[in-house]
Amino acid sequence: MVQEIRVEDLDAKGFIAEQVAAIRAAVGEGTAINALSGGVDSSVVTALGHRALGERLRTVMIDNGLMREGELERTAEVFAGLGVPVEIVDARDAFFAALRGVTDPEQKREAITQTFYRDVFGRLVRESGARVLLQGTILTDVDETVAGIKRQHNVFAQLGIDPQATFGYRILEPLVQLRKDGVRAVGEALGLPEEVFRRPPFPGPALAARVIGEATPERIATVRRATAVVERILAGSGAFQYLAILHEDRVTGMREGRREFGQQIEVRCWDSVDARVASPTQLGWETLRALADQVLAEVPGVVSVTYNLATKPPSTIEAV
Amino acid sequence: MVQEIRVEDLDAKGFIAEQVAAIRAAVGEGTAINALSGGVDSSVVTALGHRALGERLRTVMIDNGLMREGELERTAEVFAGLGVPVEIVDARDAFFAALRGVTDPEQKREAITQTFYRDVFGRLVRESGARVLLQGTILTDVDETVAGIKRQHNVFAQLGIDPQATFGYRILEPLVQLRKDGVRAVGEALGLPEEVFRRPPFPGPALAARVIGEATPERIATVRRATAVVERILAGSGAFQYLAILHEDRVTGMREGRREFGQQIEVRCWDSVDARVASPTQLGWETLRALADQVLAEVPGVVSVTYNLATKPPSTIEAV
Repeated sequence: MVQEIRVEDLDAKGFIAEQVAAIRAAVGEGTAINALSGGVDSSVVTALGHRALGERLRTVMIDNGLMREGELERTAEVFAGLGVPVEIVDARDAFFAALRGVTDPEQKREAITQTFYRDVFGRLVRESGARVLLQGTILTDVDETVAGIKRQHNVFAQLGIDPQATFGYRILEPLVQLRKDGVRAVGEALGLPEEVFRRPPFPGPALAARVIGEATPERIATVRRATAVVERILAGSGAFQYLAILHEDRVTGMREGRREFGQQIEVRCWDSVDARVASPTQLGWETLRALADQVLAEVPGVVSVTYNLATKPPSTIEAV
Repeated sequence: MVQEIRVEDLDAKGFIAEQVAAIRAAVGEGTAINALSGGVDSSVVTALGHRALGERLRTVMIDNGLMREGELERTAEVFAGLGVPVEIVDARDAFFAALRGVTDPEQKREAITQTFYRDVFGRLVRESGARVLLQGTILTDVDETVAGIKRQHNVFAQLGIDPQATFGYRILEPLVQLRKDGVRAVGEALGLPEEVFRRPPFPGPALAARVIGEATPERIATVRRATAVVERILAGSGAFQYLAILHEDRVTGMREGRREFGQQIEVRCWDSVDARVASPTQLGWETLRALADQVLAEVPGVVSVTYNLATKPPSTIEAV
């Protein structure tokens, strides 16, 4: 049972000192490895790990083909600026091969989990000789997985999975007592730029969580373009999270006077403190119109755009 | 080639006199039959036909299992109040049998067209000895069918189909030169109640056009409940048309803390004059929240509600 640290009880400096000590104790004289996605959780773990281990932490970004436009490059650049070298590993083929023909959300998550931990990371850890994988699991990931709502890609112990036996390495989770608001506070205390510690959440399965149905390279390209539009328009909204979802349903549309059986993009924009409950953000009508017009203009094959109105619960933040 | 009569050029009284004369000329001493759905077009044709033929017009409502809550009963009641007797024909089994396993929108429309004209109406016309079927095709139906945007159920001549040869009866279309605004003006001039001539449009394939994918009795029941909620909330909106669409995509939701892979309802509400072009209505946030909350509370199995933001084009009014 993990002991929750609520943000109002969090002493960020003290927490950092404790976690740095814990990481040093676990790694000893050896080395560790961690995967940086660019999200708040893995960014904070990267910064914590580097404070603890310096060059004995190897930080990689896995290019799974499911990242957003320019995301890898921008994240690597930001961390290079902080003196943290980041290595990019191209694993796109492995992920798309694992996702081929998979439409069920849980199977999609499982395909990504297995490819990441067993195939790609299994090899990297073996090759590097690292004793420990540091990762950014937070308490909400554990809760949702244990409750059976969504299997988060980074939760093992609570499901009775021993990473040492299954994948051949130990996993350390410095943030597992925190929720998103606590992680942001630790990120700020670590001196990360606001662009990093305020960054809206992005799901573990990345853009694969943003397509209903099969995550092919073509469908990922479509939702990537829609995501770029939505993030550009909503960047200043102050919302907790905003996303574009590519539906599998086809709807009737028309282009140049002819019927086009096209695709639909759903936009979700959430107000939330910690993702446990959430409400759709009350965006202005001009903003809603801009979302629709720009998605329709910039994303080929899309003839329909909707805005989510449901709360969580009974909805969830992501559709997949 | 049909000659359009624009609403600004329409002399409603003169138009009614001409059409009454044309109907009398076509039917002669015989009888005619017409199907009333309750929509503006078929209601106006019913009133025109009764003015022309009196008791020599037999008006039936086909219960295809795809109507909205209380729609048959309410329409029959309104027309009874106008002195027009309406006969209800139960054909639900025939329609659901024809729709079984059909998911493509055009095939769905075709299944309904064939069931209606060939099976149900073929028998009714033969039994009644009517010489003519009066129906409410309008110019927009013809345009969309000819342009290949949507095959409207009531368009034949323009597709090279001869109803006499195909179905065994002649079809008369008194409203084919008008668009929706013209039909409303004629309805008002005929003395129909405002509830009838101002009624928002409803598609020929009825609720089958409101489900993406197969139109099973269960899925029709779901969209029927959502439609009742949406029409209740938006009745006073002044919008041109408003509708609920049941998606086929499943999305992750949660009920009582457990994952529920649930359904999504999309709400569309349109500003338009004649349905050729349309924009989503700028509803207030309270109204949007009420739509979501009440659909989620009242429609079993639904965990997600969205609002359409796309214009027509590139969208169309209906999704199917």
